[in-house]
Amino acid sequence: MKKLLYVYISVFLLFGIYFYHSHLNAALENTNGIKRERLQGVVNDEYVMVTFMAGIDYWKSVLKGFEDAANELNVSVVYRGGALYDLHEQITILEQVIAKKPAGIAISAINPNDLNATINKAVDMGIPIVLFDSDAPLSNASSFLGTNNYLAGAEAADKMASLINNQGKVAAITLPEQLNHQERTKGFMETMKTKYPKINVVQVLDGEGDQLKSEKVANEIIQKYPDIKGIFVTEANGGVGVADAATKNKKVDLKIISFDVDRKTLDHIENGSISATMAQGTWNMGYWSMQFLFKLHNEKTKNDDHSLPPYVDTGITIVTKENVKEYYAEYTK
Amino acid sequence: MKKLLYVYISVFLLFGIYFYHSHLNAALENTNGIKRERLQGVVNDEYVMVTFMAGIDYWKSVLKGFEDAANELNVSVVYRGGALYDLHEQITILEQVIAKKPAGIAISAINPNDLNATINKAVDMGIPIVLFDSDAPLSNASSFLGTNNYLAGAEAADKMASLINNQGKVAAITLPEQLNHQERTKGFMETMKTKYPKINVVQVLDGEGDQLKSEKVANEIIQKYPDIKGIFVTEANGGVGVADAATKNKKVDLKIISFDVDRKTLDHIENGSISATMAQGTWNMGYWSMQFLFKLHNEKTKNDDHSLPPYVDTGITIVTKENVKEYYAEYTK
Repeated sequence: MKKLLYVYISVFLLFGIYFYHSHLNAALENTNGIKRERLQGVVNDEYVMVTFMAGIDYWKSVLKGFEDAANELNVSVVYRGGALYDLHEQITILEQVIAKKPAGIAISAINPNDLNATINKAVDMGIPIVLFDSDAPLSNASSFLGTNNYLAGAEAADKMASLINNQGKVAAITLPEQLNHQERTKGFMETMKTKYPKINVVQVLDGEGDQLKSEKVANEIIQKYPDIKGIFVTEANGGVGVADAATKNKKVDLKIISFDVDRKTLDHIENGSISATMAQGTWNMGYWSMQFLFKLHNEKTKNDDHSLPPYVDTGITIVTKENVKEYYAEYTK
Repeated sequence: MKKLLYVYISVFLLFGIYFYHSHLNAALENTNGIKRERLQGVVNDEYVMVTFMAGIDYWKSVLKGFEDAANELNVSVVYRGGALYDLHEQITILEQVIAKKPAGIAISAINPNDLNATINKAVDMGIPIVLFDSDAPLSNASSFLGTNNYLAGAEAADKMASLINNQGKVAAITLPEQLNHQERTKGFMETMKTKYPKINVVQVLDGEGDQLKSEKVANEIIQKYPDIKGIFVTEANGGVGVADAATKNKKVDLKIISFDVDRKTLDHIENGSISATMAQGTWNMGYWSMQFLFKLHNEKTKNDDHSLPPYVDTGITIVTKENVKEYYAEYTK
């Protein structure tokens, strides 16, 4: 009987230790700030990010944001995109992705209209869809997450004004046929007009998104207005071209503001030939696209029906010599 | 010895059942799509939502969204707000909230300027701050989540056009001194002008946000333009006033589009005297404010530094007889 008692005691002790451990773990979790009740994803849930010209640097930070959110939410990510700047290639890839019925798709549309039928088919199939960076505004996608280009141009104007002490002649080099670039130019010009009466925008020229063409038009501007103080270029190839024109004309005091971050632009910012560039909130595009798709997917599961916010302005950061190092790290690894 | 053996067997069986249960639970969790690795909050982390006129219906759905997100993220929510439309009361409450150093604060600013000092103090203390519904654009808050009022006015124009078959006289009743209402009116008028050449906006009058005053000006419009086909009212009290004017003038065919959802407006939509009302994405304001604050709080912890999207358009839903029931359920419980 004594032996039996020991056994009983051992059993109770064992259970005691077991339960103590459970509670200790729970307590530790509280101390670490981790509780185990949050809405969770499934690793098997696959969310797809679809682009075009899939290899360019620009998408890297978007994908990083998409993956960061997926890690937090405990779901999986697939990256797909055409190699080229080719509508039909993007449609084919999108069709392949849709056929697998993923948990959600984030798309950057190669043009604003021609993906509508494919996007709408996916929406009709119940696949959550958001657009990022380049919208398809007449499609049935749930949201668009991208830069407010008008505000980006306005911020470029504020930065330019502070670089040239709020007075003097400036110019803009842009792509007059593309909506994004029209908006950037409009924001720049209207802000100059309303906020900086001593600044005069003397020319707005077409750089064709090309380094050499932009160098050529910058040359013309410098010849025509030798006292020109600044040039705003609405895309990155042109920014490098304008920097070359300034160097060749020995116009070292010309303030150049470019758009986007690529290695060449960052190099020019580090050596001082470009004063600043407008970095789009690419990480935000990816991170919040993932969060939005996750929300849609889980609402569907829960039969909930709050529609997503239709638009998120993913923001702009001005990159100068002071913070260029962070961008080297983020964009060119 | 035999008895001892039974005890041993019982003990093993008990443990067996215990472990079997654990694994069964784990298996079930997997089948249910639940894994336990997602980034988690702490119930002790307190996120505060601060308003003014805290008792009005309008905030209920915002708070519901804020709480829904908090439940998913496993954090706690506190709701604070002045009882009155009183700047100093809101500042006092905000100061009390800040003193407790919460994990984050979502604020609807009673006016766009006078909370800046208090908001900036909180930001300097490292407290994550976002604004919703009413912005303080020059403060250092991280984001604003609210309606794009210009687009809301544009959507009201589209709805009005479809109600009157794209032709005829319409009018608007608004609050000409308030920015939100100016934007709504501008979106309405510019959309009519560019998209609906056969619709003529004959008058834009001040309803003072008051039911009786709005009824009075609607009367004037109906007297002056007996063939008026529709009136867009940029706030809810006025909408009810215009409906009263239409009833008293036996103008049953007048199409009225109002703004926001309160019980009176919903009642008028159900009985058909108001055709539609523009419901703001209040749940989205709360839900994504909470998600943004959570992100900021956890980035701080992780020493990460992605800035939040500066603006989220929380969207508009058009409420008509067809979907009014859902709004009764959501807004008036």
